[in-house]
Amino acid sequence: MIFASAPMHLKTCSLLATLCIVPAAYAQGVVDIGSYGAKPGSGADATPAVRAALDACRQSRAAKLVFSAGQYDFWPTHASEKYLFVSNNDEGLKRIVFDLTGFNGLEIDGRGARFVFHRGVNPFLLDHARNITIRNLSLDWKRTFHSEAKIVAVGKDTVDLAISEAYPFKLENGLLIFTGEDKEVVAFQNVLEFDPVKRETAYMARDYRTGLNLQATEIGPRLVRVRIPKFEGTPGNILVFGASRRDFSAFTVTDSENFKLLSVNIYHCGGMGVIAQRSRDIELDQVRVTPSPGSGRVVSITADATHFVNCSGRIVMTNCLFENQKDDATNIHGIYAQVSAMLPDGELEVKLVHPQQRGFDFLAPGMKVELVHGPSMITYAEAVVRSAERRNSEYTRIRLTTPLPGALKIGDAVAAAGPYPEVVIRNCTIRGNRARGLLLGSRGKILIEDNTFHTAGAAILLEGDARYWFEQAGVRDLVIRRNRFEDCNYGVWGKAVIEVAAGIDSKERTGNGYNRNIVVEENLFRQFDTNPIVSAYCVDGLKVRKNRIEKSTAYPARNPGAKPFEISDSVNVQIEQD
Amino acid sequence: MIFASAPMHLKTCSLLATLCIVPAAYAQGVVDIGSYGAKPGSGADATPAVRAALDACRQSRAAKLVFSAGQYDFWPTHASEKYLFVSNNDEGLKRIVFDLTGFNGLEIDGRGARFVFHRGVNPFLLDHARNITIRNLSLDWKRTFHSEAKIVAVGKDTVDLAISEAYPFKLENGLLIFTGEDKEVVAFQNVLEFDPVKRETAYMARDYRTGLNLQATEIGPRLVRVRIPKFEGTPGNILVFGASRRDFSAFTVTDSENFKLLSVNIYHCGGMGVIAQRSRDIELDQVRVTPSPGSGRVVSITADATHFVNCSGRIVMTNCLFENQKDDATNIHGIYAQVSAMLPDGELEVKLVHPQQRGFDFLAPGMKVELVHGPSMITYAEAVVRSAERRNSEYTRIRLTTPLPGALKIGDAVAAAGPYPEVVIRNCTIRGNRARGLLLGSRGKILIEDNTFHTAGAAILLEGDARYWFEQAGVRDLVIRRNRFEDCNYGVWGKAVIEVAAGIDSKERTGNGYNRNIVVEENLFRQFDTNPIVSAYCVDGLKVRKNRIEKSTAYPARNPGAKPFEISDSVNVQIEQD
Repeated sequence: MIFASAPMHLKTCSLLATLCIVPAAYAQGVVDIGSYGAKPGSGADATPAVRAALDACRQSRAAKLVFSAGQYDFWPTHASEKYLFVSNNDEGLKRIVFDLTGFNGLEIDGRGARFVFHRGVNPFLLDHARNITIRNLSLDWKRTFHSEAKIVAVGKDTVDLAISEAYPFKLENGLLIFTGEDKEVVAFQNVLEFDPVKRETAYMARDYRTGLNLQATEIGPRLVRVRIPKFEGTPGNILVFGASRRDFSAFTVTDSENFKLLSVNIYHCGGMGVIAQRSRDIELDQVRVTPSPGSGRVVSITADATHFVNCSGRIVMTNCLFENQKDDATNIHGIYAQVSAMLPDGELEVKLVHPQQRGFDFLAPGMKVELVHGPSMITYAEAVVRSAERRNSEYTRIRLTTPLPGALKIGDAVAAAGPYPEVVIRNCTIRGNRARGLLLGSRGKILIEDNTFHTAGAAILLEGDARYWFEQAGVRDLVIRRNRFEDCNYGVWGKAVIEVAAGIDSKERTGNGYNRNIVVEENLFRQFDTNPIVSAYCVDGLKVRKNRIEKSTAYPARNPGAKPFEISDSVNVQIEQD
Repeated sequence: MIFASAPMHLKTCSLLATLCIVPAAYAQGVVDIGSYGAKPGSGADATPAVRAALDACRQSRAAKLVFSAGQYDFWPTHASEKYLFVSNNDEGLKRIVFDLTGFNGLEIDGRGARFVFHRGVNPFLLDHARNITIRNLSLDWKRTFHSEAKIVAVGKDTVDLAISEAYPFKLENGLLIFTGEDKEVVAFQNVLEFDPVKRETAYMARDYRTGLNLQATEIGPRLVRVRIPKFEGTPGNILVFGASRRDFSAFTVTDSENFKLLSVNIYHCGGMGVIAQRSRDIELDQVRVTPSPGSGRVVSITADATHFVNCSGRIVMTNCLFENQKDDATNIHGIYAQVSAMLPDGELEVKLVHPQQRGFDFLAPGMKVELVHGPSMITYAEAVVRSAERRNSEYTRIRLTTPLPGALKIGDAVAAAGPYPEVVIRNCTIRGNRARGLLLGSRGKILIEDNTFHTAGAAILLEGDARYWFEQAGVRDLVIRRNRFEDCNYGVWGKAVIEVAAGIDSKERTGNGYNRNIVVEENLFRQFDTNPIVSAYCVDGLKVRKNRIEKSTAYPARNPGAKPFEISDSVNVQIEQD
């Protein structure tokens, strides 16, 4: 962490030592939020104080902004505003409490503060920010972006729900509508069953995509009968109504570098815990994504705990807890833009196909790109961008410094040809969340070490495709070492504890080493089932050695015929079985 | 209209006369869209051609862009994109076909072209544009932003509707959902009954605010029974489902000057026909807002035909037809920002209260403002803005060049103290639309002359308030002369043919001349009822003279006891009755 040098006016003062009094707050470049009117526990909106304090930090080039233990509340009303295109989240004009755009060298120390947000607001934005550290605080929301209800009874195509005061709702036009602090609609578009005793998704529970409307009737005080065709579930379990959008991630990092997030609890947000795009050098230590203590919630945050798109440098996560979030613990990947037209004079038009990738401007003059065949994902050429013209948030026109390869055709993909991030994930615990653990799609060196996994889907998934999600992946050096995999894959989101897949057309798999050089060693796999330990295809270089496999009885068997290792269309494979 | 001078490179050519060939299209500064690949009647997306042609116009400083007779189609796919805050419309990231941002001196001549738009797209944006003329074209949409259905039967709390193929729909979760060309939801939030024979809102029909959802069941092929509590309506009439948002006005004009719109038919759009804000010198001649011929629609466009906010210079509308639009023919007003906080050091925080005024940044250094008492709307001081800092789209902080007046308190309003536009509306026809004719709120000279009105609400309304809509108004010199008012006020949106009102607290009306110097002379009022011809309060200076009042039997009487002139809390009033 490189802190900014002392404020300019302090340097001036030092020349005049005896003539001027240096304000105490500035003496060491420390700004106290208390000086700007924010009092912990007051229940007042601390947002204007934060904006004033950040202005002061910017002007005085302060090194540190500090809070006190206690609760600070934040509303969107007076927050700053910016239109944000954030990959894998929903775009929009967002309100932001801590807008750190352009900051270089600032530490925010919560000193144990608890930040409670109200309604739709983004806690932290790092946009073209450098050398930022945030530590010692927790984030929560007064009213969550998801809703939870207890299953009381299950009928034919119906489920009866008891809904606590924490999740206000109304019935209108025969529909169930959850509401927020100001009676605003808290929209959902799917439901998923959780087991409140095990604190995880119910065994083999699946997502029901409900759309924004569910028919419902009142059957008692805070008791509602909801119509969900073919619903299966268990009384006593919790039905979670998933947020319809991802608008309010806790930490949004874009085009930034050297961000450290240390000892921070993310109890809730309406999106991802940390989403970083086109950024480098990000470190998380002792970040805990977990339901707010005492809240009784089974869900922490409404999407992935962390997510990194087209990042570089080093991504390091150590000593973290990622539990009960509504999506993966991490997903590290690039983005494929699809070639949508070949224009005269060698100009290419490319499209960002997935709606949550719109506005992701990653193509810039001087950048090295790979040209990829869509169905096989084989890179058949590399080139350098000469010019890039954004046409709108979906379409960009580019020219390359060299003639277009003859192989290029519409439907192919263009992605960054590095730099790719080096990744270390060590001593983290991942459990109880929906879907998978780690989605690893960097071509840099990746080390996954000494972690504990208990995930409903695959604990580790290698994916990537240029036809559906348009996520660039394909590892080159991945070591998975000394981890504990404890009864993973008890849900519907995976077919193995470690799953190496990719959206490669079945006709294109032979000899296709999309993922390369994977080592799986010295891990413990404790499994209730004979689910595959490793399932893989299209790998060039896979070593599985010195792992221990234990049998448990934690869940009913779900896949009795499966072999522990299912490998196809791969070369240079060495598997040692105990 | 001032055209730009000849393109720079042509000047260079002229020096080298015999050495270079001047392209024919550029010879007179004329760009033909056909040179950019757009062919009328092809059914292809002409948007890329328009963008390329506009780029060429910009680069060559062409004076004119021309089309041919025939149909051009436009989709949002390849349109340019901009986040637009447009007063009295809904903000958002919009796609724009003709983005004329920054243009100075361009004429677009459709030469009789018919522009057909598809899905959500903005036809024309003038942003910081000067000296623009658009003429000889028509605008329509393939699928409208509103929906129409024929009332087949009316039951208790239900209405049975026959819905034609022009308005695709589905029933989902027991709800009626209208859909568009790509199956996208075409959202409504109100319904209103129209008389398809008279081609106007049904006698005394009112808006039903339905919200986004209406319960419905299928009762036959394209026959739907919809539940609307207490619905009253007449079989054979048309029920219009009003668009839920105003996102796609035909002509959006912001911070621009000298715009002429000549001989243009606006058959449809999802917003206003012409919305202009912070702009000056706007002329409309032979602009026709009317349902697309042959479409069978009872509604033309989904909001006001025209609307002018904080404009100045001259607003001239001559020989126009404004019919069947879902809101007023025009509304000319300013905006009041509400004083929300008094900060230390004399700083004021003001708020744009109405959600459709957000982002309307009208306060700028050097600007003269009036300070207004909210409940009375009395201007108690004028001042000059020294600095303005936008905090977000709702809040702005300002400093004045002089100390704050002692009278100033939270809840007061701040608005521009001029310049106000001079307005001429002459020889226009206004009929069949929902709500009112002309809302006049400029303090410049206003002349309303030789027009024909047949409006469901007041033909002319003077409004303004600083508590609900926050629209600054208050005329100073208004002449209403030689117009024909033909059976106005047959609906629920007014209490007189000419209504002079304002959101002034009843305790603040005595001596409050919010509107001043109004002359109503030589008009013909043909009325089916003894509705007031003129209703007014808080006027200083009203002369009514030489008007003719005729009795008609066009509608049942609705207000038998009313007097033709109801004037209160006013001074300097002269009324001559025949």
